[in-house]
Amino acid sequence: MTTLHPSDKALVPFVSVDHMMRLVHHIGIEDMLRGLAEYIEADFRRWQLFDKTPRIASHSAEGVIELMPTSDGEVYGFKYVNGHPKNTAEGLQTVTAFGLLADVASGYPVLLSEMTLLTAMRTAATSALVARVLAPKNARCMAMIGNGAQSEFQSLAMKAVCGISEVRLFDIDPKATAKCAANLAGMGLTVTQCATPEEAIMGAQIITTCTADKQYATILTDNMVGAGVHINAIGGDCPGKTELAPAILHRADIFVEFPEQTRIEGEIQQLAPDHPVTEIWQVLSGTAKGRVSPSQITLFDSVGFAIEDFSALRYVRDRIAGTGFFHPLDLLADPDDPRDLFGMLQRAG
Amino acid sequence: MTTLHPSDKALVPFVSVDHMMRLVHHIGIEDMLRGLAEYIEADFRRWQLFDKTPRIASHSAEGVIELMPTSDGEVYGFKYVNGHPKNTAEGLQTVTAFGLLADVASGYPVLLSEMTLLTAMRTAATSALVARVLAPKNARCMAMIGNGAQSEFQSLAMKAVCGISEVRLFDIDPKATAKCAANLAGMGLTVTQCATPEEAIMGAQIITTCTADKQYATILTDNMVGAGVHINAIGGDCPGKTELAPAILHRADIFVEFPEQTRIEGEIQQLAPDHPVTEIWQVLSGTAKGRVSPSQITLFDSVGFAIEDFSALRYVRDRIAGTGFFHPLDLLADPDDPRDLFGMLQRAG
Repeated sequence: MTTLHPSDKALVPFVSVDHMMRLVHHIGIEDMLRGLAEYIEADFRRWQLFDKTPRIASHSAEGVIELMPTSDGEVYGFKYVNGHPKNTAEGLQTVTAFGLLADVASGYPVLLSEMTLLTAMRTAATSALVARVLAPKNARCMAMIGNGAQSEFQSLAMKAVCGISEVRLFDIDPKATAKCAANLAGMGLTVTQCATPEEAIMGAQIITTCTADKQYATILTDNMVGAGVHINAIGGDCPGKTELAPAILHRADIFVEFPEQTRIEGEIQQLAPDHPVTEIWQVLSGTAKGRVSPSQITLFDSVGFAIEDFSALRYVRDRIAGTGFFHPLDLLADPDDPRDLFGMLQRAG
Repeated sequence: MTTLHPSDKALVPFVSVDHMMRLVHHIGIEDMLRGLAEYIEADFRRWQLFDKTPRIASHSAEGVIELMPTSDGEVYGFKYVNGHPKNTAEGLQTVTAFGLLADVASGYPVLLSEMTLLTAMRTAATSALVARVLAPKNARCMAMIGNGAQSEFQSLAMKAVCGISEVRLFDIDPKATAKCAANLAGMGLTVTQCATPEEAIMGAQIITTCTADKQYATILTDNMVGAGVHINAIGGDCPGKTELAPAILHRADIFVEFPEQTRIEGEIQQLAPDHPVTEIWQVLSGTAKGRVSPSQITLFDSVGFAIEDFSALRYVRDRIAGTGFFHPLDLLADPDDPRDLFGMLQRAG
């Protein structure tokens, strides 16, 4: 007699969207953003341990579907993520994602999780972690250009991790700005809705651009960016999609996650392939300099990297232990005798 | 008021191991193997439509974890699969897998499925489909070398798709052979347990090798293989893992799935990188010849390719429609306003 109920080895903890939302509220969103930033920083500091490969992208006219794998030798992780700018008009998310952790020694998955929410949070946590080392000292105000699904997470992460107290919002669609402002009301930030990008960047030490068009666009022109700011450019993240005027790039010191990927997908696809950039893990681990003068323009040309997802999944795995924020998924066949897969199938008949 | 229940768009049909077993019994295993072979053949015939890339492998001392993506321009699919030969000794599967289909136009997943069972079935269906065009006419007997988790599926697929009536089993572990023979009892095949590989190949027109050591091994030596046989070599499927003596390869006409991958992972990693091979999709679509003489040795150097998984997932998606063999998984965040991911999270609090 063989039971139809799979063994523990076959059951993979699954964190649904509903579980993830409950987990966020259980922890508190700012604490969670800080926690994610800590996990990401810890993994950036041991960057050289990881298997690193540019993500594997499948491009179509409408968008892109990507797989982002990495491994630290003990744990393997990957994320499935799409980017479809036209989705919004059809009532769908531009970006949806899920991810997985597995045990390298056995190859068995140990966590499956929604990552649409988690990607928004890890992206914001990464931005804020990097701004903490690159933005001018005592930065208190961020301009948020592009007020879509990322904007509130960016704002709260910059508050929680970097200590900003004000955000100045701009979007070509004022309804998006109003939505972002309403969501941020009562969260401890001074929120200003601006009618132009020029108005939004007034007095801001940090400028975050997060727009979603899949095309070369110039969200920031050269004359809009003064000395002594930190630019956090996260919207340009695939070939043919950029947000910044090239002249800004030439005035800035540029920091990236993984150059091999950023040169294809980031703002620097507009520059020569040997244009100097600094890897942000080197700044975080103390082997390269970050901001060296108050007047410097620093640019984090962020496209998102697999290790950030790996860190976020590690965080979730550690936080769900002992909670009800997951359920076991019957994902893996696990016969009593591993060579007897067919027998398991036959006995289920 | 926003409901906490996700919309249909956010729910991905999930086929668990239990669902898959029920689906197999509902359809009947031989019918399912035939159906899988039809879907795989249909996709091989439109081979040139597909995005093809060698799988993305993460190797470790114990094994390998791979992602296998592909797309036909309308549907995207990928499989997660591990290969850990040492797992068996620890009571775990050597190979576990799951897979996903997504809509290319939106990037939204449309199916998540277990693929440990499904991989065993698609591998067997592919082997049988290829043997149908390469094996000698009226092949009736297969030698099955390696009697692990794949062996019964291989045997039944060769019966269902290729019309064999006899299998001759050999494994270095007689218990594996006894297990395979017991599972195949009453399935309409004459089953012979053999004490040596030489005994197993006596009278066989098809020789299938499926062993799991992650090392160069010589399961078949040159003098064991006579004229006029078809060799179906499926166990050698990663760098450093082969099953056949090089001399056999030099006597055989070699057929492969995707040369770029097979030259790294297959038996032909033992040969010069320009050794001639025929792509099996060309034989199936009539643009290249298969077997041309009764005395020829044909070899299908099979390592498994992403399109076979894609076909298998398509088959499952088509077959579960209107059945109870899946359940909806809350995998994707789907706010009423797609730009209002944060608002969805906030209202869930």
